[in-house]
Amino acid sequence: MALGEFQLIARYFTWSPETRTGVVLGVGDDCALLAPAPGQQLAVSTDTLVEGRHFLSTVPPERLGHKALAVNLSDLAACGAQPLAFTLALSLPRVEEAFLAGLARGMQALAQRTGIALVGGDTTAGPLALTVTVFGEVPPGAALLRSGAAPGDTLWVSGALGDARLALEAFRGTLRLEACAFEAARRAMEQPEPRVALGLALRGVATSAIDLSDGLLGDLAHILERSRVGAQVQLDALPRSAHLAAQPEPVQRSCVLAGGDDYELLFTAPAHAQAAVHAAAQRAGVPVTAVGVIVADAGLRVLDACGQEVALGGLAGFDHFVS
Amino acid sequence: MALGEFQLIARYFTWSPETRTGVVLGVGDDCALLAPAPGQQLAVSTDTLVEGRHFLSTVPPERLGHKALAVNLSDLAACGAQPLAFTLALSLPRVEEAFLAGLARGMQALAQRTGIALVGGDTTAGPLALTVTVFGEVPPGAALLRSGAAPGDTLWVSGALGDARLALEAFRGTLRLEACAFEAARRAMEQPEPRVALGLALRGVATSAIDLSDGLLGDLAHILERSRVGAQVQLDALPRSAHLAAQPEPVQRSCVLAGGDDYELLFTAPAHAQAAVHAAAQRAGVPVTAVGVIVADAGLRVLDACGQEVALGGLAGFDHFVS
Repeated sequence: MALGEFQLIARYFTWSPETRTGVVLGVGDDCALLAPAPGQQLAVSTDTLVEGRHFLSTVPPERLGHKALAVNLSDLAACGAQPLAFTLALSLPRVEEAFLAGLARGMQALAQRTGIALVGGDTTAGPLALTVTVFGEVPPGAALLRSGAAPGDTLWVSGALGDARLALEAFRGTLRLEACAFEAARRAMEQPEPRVALGLALRGVATSAIDLSDGLLGDLAHILERSRVGAQVQLDALPRSAHLAAQPEPVQRSCVLAGGDDYELLFTAPAHAQAAVHAAAQRAGVPVTAVGVIVADAGLRVLDACGQEVALGGLAGFDHFVS
Repeated sequence: MALGEFQLIARYFTWSPETRTGVVLGVGDDCALLAPAPGQQLAVSTDTLVEGRHFLSTVPPERLGHKALAVNLSDLAACGAQPLAFTLALSLPRVEEAFLAGLARGMQALAQRTGIALVGGDTTAGPLALTVTVFGEVPPGAALLRSGAAPGDTLWVSGALGDARLALEAFRGTLRLEACAFEAARRAMEQPEPRVALGLALRGVATSAIDLSDGLLGDLAHILERSRVGAQVQLDALPRSAHLAAQPEPVQRSCVLAGGDDYELLFTAPAHAQAAVHAAAQRAGVPVTAVGVIVADAGLRVLDACGQEVALGGLAGFDHFVS
């Protein structure tokens, strides 16, 4: 890239003086300098989005900017961490001002809404890809981990599942959606809302948490493995949108169990904490649904409305968009 | 990628339990958890290496693993920060065990030698690229910034300049090197040594610092701009290897002034601090050379042995490998 192109990128990705508490020095030196509040730990996570793998070339740049930050904020949410700062490594095949402006606008809007400061980055010529690394603050011992689920805990999920996968299948042409259903599903895929406020509200309430990026079955397996427990999930209890509920049952099942790209929180809490979970959800303004229970015996069983175990074999071939 | 491939990658990039002080939780949850020492600030930087742009396909994987971490450690060095932890976002076109093993080996060796812990990452299928984000600790007010150079300060550089560019030109076929010169230059390009110990030793001594990634002229311009000063550089004083010194003068000049990819430190210190600079360099085991002086008037002048100003116009067309 020519120097002028780098300056153009720098202009779009340097928004406002960084006055957020905890950011001593932002973009422009060899390193940014962060000063976490005394006694706080720093939660760190990184995620890359690559064109054709994590997003389609048809995505509006504003939504892409939003999503690159959102999927990382979702990891902070799953830890119950307060967003502090992030870095952006941007690989671009060419410099188009309208694209850059949209990308920056979408990212900045979400950053300002969640109070996270862009403190550094790197731009290079290359295939279109965005790697974001996020930092959040969390008091010692307060982070929500994957390892805390205990037998008897209720399994909860936020929002609704499967819409992102529904949109992807519509893009692929394997199913058809009416215009308004397509728009809603497409928004779920392209512009997921990270559940930051819910993660914060669940500190001290949830015993474990993970964000749903690879699909419920795969992500729940991580909690079960780290917590050394098993789970029973009620298939019919898994929350889904009205347009997904209008699809044939096998499509619904695949989308809610293994769709991926949901960025909802999956978490556990003791059975007696039901009221506390609902209070946290209300504070965060996010619906939550009880979808199963943690059991002592290893393994994951999905049960239908009649209590019969659902065979999951067919889902193994349902390949992931996200990987 | 198939699940088994992800597990293979995870196996190579999860080395040893993370027992470093300051790392509460390493790889394996939604976030890593860091606990910087009380009162310390956190220095953060991120850099991406893309195949064909920052490295050639001929690079041995072990050196590539080293370099991806080294260029980021170099930013911590330029700030005078103590390496703490890093994340790795890896984009791979295919999974080859020998390549992964080499990549991990090179990265791990440098990580262990510099005391930095791998605490998280993301792997995706895509064009070969590595994005590393590093975190280091630095006491408040102790970070070396680009903005502290003052008129009268001496300008210093560590190591030798231009070898990485010399190797690149040999790879490109624009010049020929004898076998042992080629090997030495190639090592400088493929396996730069981050000057972490020197950066730490220069705390309280240097008034400004930057690491040389884009070439001396470009990087010095950043110090001059941020410090609102000018500089005079003695061309003949710029340190270079014996094999670079054997090249025609225009090649030498281009390589030392605008070669890029050196990862040496360029820094300033008051004239009276000469002994302190030499003591710091000795503690770090790195040679340093005084190469010029900071002046009040804006602008960058390069002078030859006769005190005549060197025309830099021709260097503008000397394109950067790194961008």
